[in-house]
Amino acid sequence: MSKGPLDGITVIDMTRVLAGPYCTMLLHDLGARVIKVETPGHGDDARHFGPWAKHGKSAYFMSLNRGKESIALNLKDAEDRKIFEALLGKADILVENYRAGTMEKLGYGWEMLEKNYPQLIYAAASGFGQTGPYANRAAYDMVVQGMGGIMSITGHPGGPPTRVGTSVGDITAGLFTTVGINAALVERNRTGKGMMIDVSMLDCQLAILENAVARYVTSGEVPGPLGARHPSITPFEAYESGDGHIIIAAGNNKLFESLASALGKPEWVTDPRFLTNKDRAEHVDDLKVEMELVLKTQPTDHWMHELEKAGVPCGPINDVGQVMNDPQILSRNMVVSIEDPQEGHFRMAGNPIKMSAHADPATRGHVPDLDESREAILKELGFA
Amino acid sequence: MSKGPLDGITVIDMTRVLAGPYCTMLLHDLGARVIKVETPGHGDDARHFGPWAKHGKSAYFMSLNRGKESIALNLKDAEDRKIFEALLGKADILVENYRAGTMEKLGYGWEMLEKNYPQLIYAAASGFGQTGPYANRAAYDMVVQGMGGIMSITGHPGGPPTRVGTSVGDITAGLFTTVGINAALVERNRTGKGMMIDVSMLDCQLAILENAVARYVTSGEVPGPLGARHPSITPFEAYESGDGHIIIAAGNNKLFESLASALGKPEWVTDPRFLTNKDRAEHVDDLKVEMELVLKTQPTDHWMHELEKAGVPCGPINDVGQVMNDPQILSRNMVVSIEDPQEGHFRMAGNPIKMSAHADPATRGHVPDLDESREAILKELGFA
Repeated sequence: MSKGPLDGITVIDMTRVLAGPYCTMLLHDLGARVIKVETPGHGDDARHFGPWAKHGKSAYFMSLNRGKESIALNLKDAEDRKIFEALLGKADILVENYRAGTMEKLGYGWEMLEKNYPQLIYAAASGFGQTGPYANRAAYDMVVQGMGGIMSITGHPGGPPTRVGTSVGDITAGLFTTVGINAALVERNRTGKGMMIDVSMLDCQLAILENAVARYVTSGEVPGPLGARHPSITPFEAYESGDGHIIIAAGNNKLFESLASALGKPEWVTDPRFLTNKDRAEHVDDLKVEMELVLKTQPTDHWMHELEKAGVPCGPINDVGQVMNDPQILSRNMVVSIEDPQEGHFRMAGNPIKMSAHADPATRGHVPDLDESREAILKELGFA
Repeated sequence: MSKGPLDGITVIDMTRVLAGPYCTMLLHDLGARVIKVETPGHGDDARHFGPWAKHGKSAYFMSLNRGKESIALNLKDAEDRKIFEALLGKADILVENYRAGTMEKLGYGWEMLEKNYPQLIYAAASGFGQTGPYANRAAYDMVVQGMGGIMSITGHPGGPPTRVGTSVGDITAGLFTTVGINAALVERNRTGKGMMIDVSMLDCQLAILENAVARYVTSGEVPGPLGARHPSITPFEAYESGDGHIIIAAGNNKLFESLASALGKPEWVTDPRFLTNKDRAEHVDDLKVEMELVLKTQPTDHWMHELEKAGVPCGPINDVGQVMNDPQILSRNMVVSIEDPQEGHFRMAGNPIKMSAHADPATRGHVPDLDESREAILKELGFA
């Protein structure tokens, strides 16, 4: 049975920590064989980052490297370079997320790769990309979140700087890199040739700013943070309820009418402050006060029930435990697990790309120890 | 000259607002022909959302629909259905982001599509996916940001709920859908067959929680918001400088030593509170106080210069105007433009996937008015 749309594709994975490993995890989820090439002794830096599973393995590393193989190679050693080059010869894809220039120093820049491995798709994900004045600088997620503008529109007006709670700098770079790799595979089917893909974490941050860019280019005004409010649709915000918060998103007049009715305030619909989205946006604070007067009289669950009945999009603010146990998430197999020889049963987020042509197994391939796949790979390559 | 890796691929685009149009914009950027099928009169809802360009077009819509074609079809009308079906017959990909069940009601569910258009890759991006207890509920970005956990880890401890300032609910769903479509094209080259791809915005939110999921599954503790601080690496945070903030990410002992030196505090390296990342994480507040005592004596620019010299990853918190004018962003062609017949020169974020085999034009195809491409498409299909 096919492992997925990328069945038969081999990925040489020199990536570390998050952006790169996230990309190669997706490629594995889609059916590719992923061979991690790690530094002897140390391996992927993420092996040394917490949080820790109960027998001492990095849970962080485990959550990003399911189903991959591992071989430790010292790329400054002549014998190990031969092994690496044999791997490149049979690979479809090479992915790395070093600082720009590192591959050239190792003697594996694109010029060399293209000449010797014309079939190879080489993807480089880096902080700032392979070109431009910052190309040689190091970056981490929070640095590009800060430089890329997302922190300037996240948080509360006048409040302290706020990081997006997940590493969107790394993860969006991982996603764009994966998009590029798959598109390059489509083209290679026509041309037989690989290509180089250069993705910068900073570029990706600009690419996800959407509304904020449109506001800036039209008005010249610099958008600021808006707390938990949508920049242009009202009501569309987190409101206080009797026991916490509820998010209500009534994006058009019909939904606003349903909302007003469900809250027992049909008169809002003819209130001149709330007639159209434009009016409601101008009186967003008034509307919030009025809505919370009602919403605070009952708990979130009550309003969820009433608003769902009325067809008004709404939702609670779930914590990570709640989302991991949400019936929708569970029914969609979005919590998968591996069986680790030391750590036992270990849960992690699943693959959100559900495909009619492929199974979506609840149990995934185990996470390799450093150099675990050495013997099998060397034998396959004819080195042992 | 090839337009990109997806040159020759035709996409029928029934998407509205953000998640779906973001996906089809990426497909267009990669070289595909994208034909928007819109409702007569109204079109994509985003045509009616601000911010507005100076002659009244939606800047929001413009920023998501460059280079696409548009035809308005009433899918309840027999004549228009014939046109739609002729389009499906020549299409490689169909993308929609309706609520689950809508395509079945229109008579274009997957069962029908698969039978009549076996080559077709059909991608459905929805709030909650095509299956599970919430399948028929509507969702908007903020609803899935709330339900999916990211809001519970974004913001400041004890502070009010905080939305991520960009629509990560929509955008990540758009990205995962694009990954799935490209992978399905790779498989279709082997099998000749399409497939259905089902992506849920809520699933995607869980898929990007990374560290927070690992923390929850190992400790059972529910992660909360951390302001502008990394959950497990110290120092890795936004700090106050003399004139604003600076982000400093010193992820290991060597970088911490360089940082201490650059701030004129070499003694920190032997301070028992700061010896290892574990020690620094335990004394994260102490370290912040000590660092800010120094950092507040000079402006951000001064420290950026000093820390770059020392090789310590750091960065400013740029606003949207600053990032749009950043030399690195500009040198990477990340601000592209279109020429609109009414609005003139209009800027927007570019494509972060840079490919050695393809140009990355600074001027992109214009944004279609509703039904603008009707005549040409009908002629091409033999209807006119």
